[in-house]
Amino acid sequence: MDLIRQVIFMDNNKRISLSVVKRLPRYYRYLGEMLENNIKRVSSQDLSKKMKVTASQIRQDLNNFGSFGQQGYGYNVELLYKEIQKILGLTRQYNLIIIGAGNIGKSLLNYINFKKRGFNFTAVFDIKPELVGTQINGIEVQHIGNLEYYLTYNTVDIAVLTMTKENTASVAEIVIKCGVKGILNFSHIDINAPNGVVIENVHLTDSLMILSYGLNESCGYEINIRD
Amino acid sequence: MDLIRQVIFMDNNKRISLSVVKRLPRYYRYLGEMLENNIKRVSSQDLSKKMKVTASQIRQDLNNFGSFGQQGYGYNVELLYKEIQKILGLTRQYNLIIIGAGNIGKSLLNYINFKKRGFNFTAVFDIKPELVGTQINGIEVQHIGNLEYYLTYNTVDIAVLTMTKENTASVAEIVIKCGVKGILNFSHIDINAPNGVVIENVHLTDSLMILSYGLNESCGYEINIRD
Repeated sequence: MDLIRQVIFMDNNKRISLSVVKRLPRYYRYLGEMLENNIKRVSSQDLSKKMKVTASQIRQDLNNFGSFGQQGYGYNVELLYKEIQKILGLTRQYNLIIIGAGNIGKSLLNYINFKKRGFNFTAVFDIKPELVGTQINGIEVQHIGNLEYYLTYNTVDIAVLTMTKENTASVAEIVIKCGVKGILNFSHIDINAPNGVVIENVHLTDSLMILSYGLNESCGYEINIRD
Repeated sequence: MDLIRQVIFMDNNKRISLSVVKRLPRYYRYLGEMLENNIKRVSSQDLSKKMKVTASQIRQDLNNFGSFGQQGYGYNVELLYKEIQKILGLTRQYNLIIIGAGNIGKSLLNYINFKKRGFNFTAVFDIKPELVGTQINGIEVQHIGNLEYYLTYNTVDIAVLTMTKENTASVAEIVIKCGVKGILNFSHIDINAPNGVVIENVHLTDSLMILSYGLNESCGYEINIRD
């Protein structure tokens, strides 16, 4: 179990550690910004400043994906961007559903960058009668009772759970039983993931607790979700 | 820099690694649930099942905070809960402000568990004229132009940034200049933290990218923000 959590195997049997994987989205964001600004190459030193990890760590990280760096030249921004895009699985589209049409659900539905990255919301579910039938960003809120039927007849890659703690376990069970392989969990309990299911937890109270720890230690550090 | 990020010193000069600190909120949540269910003691094996780390890791983690375990008895739930509460700085109250009264801001303001943990929202700011003057959960939205004045005359421990990417850097600058030591950052850029300022980033697009990575590797792992 611990092994599975800490080491992820690539197709070519090369191992990428979870801590490297967690840094990939940041590399991807920074390289994307550089591309937009027409920057063609970047040194590990410059990337190091942005990423706030050492240049040698950068070189070590990127060596995992092939030899993109050239001594004295740095990294080809576009090649590296495209390679990380491929590794992160961002060359395809994903169907997402949201369960829980509250404020967090709404803010996710209205966030245009998700679509740009290939994450498309296809359905929203809630239990509250006053929400069912309303539209959020062009998607009609369905009653949670339709969830299992919907999952049977539609392909869903990722289910986003934003409902109350009390209902999360039973809804997660349905979602997993119906073959959804990815869960983004905002509710304040942890879900047991069976083999083959990927769960990403966003527990905001935990984030505040880490902040309060840091405030009391006042040692001036910065924590990224993906550290 | 890297050292500061990876090792946090306790008052008594004992080091707690960042990875242990990141697990503390989960320990705290689980122990809290046990207390509510009147469970007096817990073995490292039982905690291990919940936390999904090995029992030996649990023992190692908790040894950081003193000798709470007794061979053959396990851990005293209440003592351990209170110790972690103290370490996390949850024995005091915190004043929080939110900048950006959109959906994420609203959902945070309406989340009652924050108050229970000692995180109290005292003010909300936005730039949109149609939001200024409205009330969210009893707090009136002020114009962002009031921010600096407010920070000068009120004690704020944590600023929650939920506004657009474009305005984040300038607002973060004001907030840090006015002495706020903790920032919970939801906007999709990283903020440079000067010494003594703690930043916790919640980048939801990054979370989706990690999920898509996992879906394509389909190796069935679970990632927690705090891993």
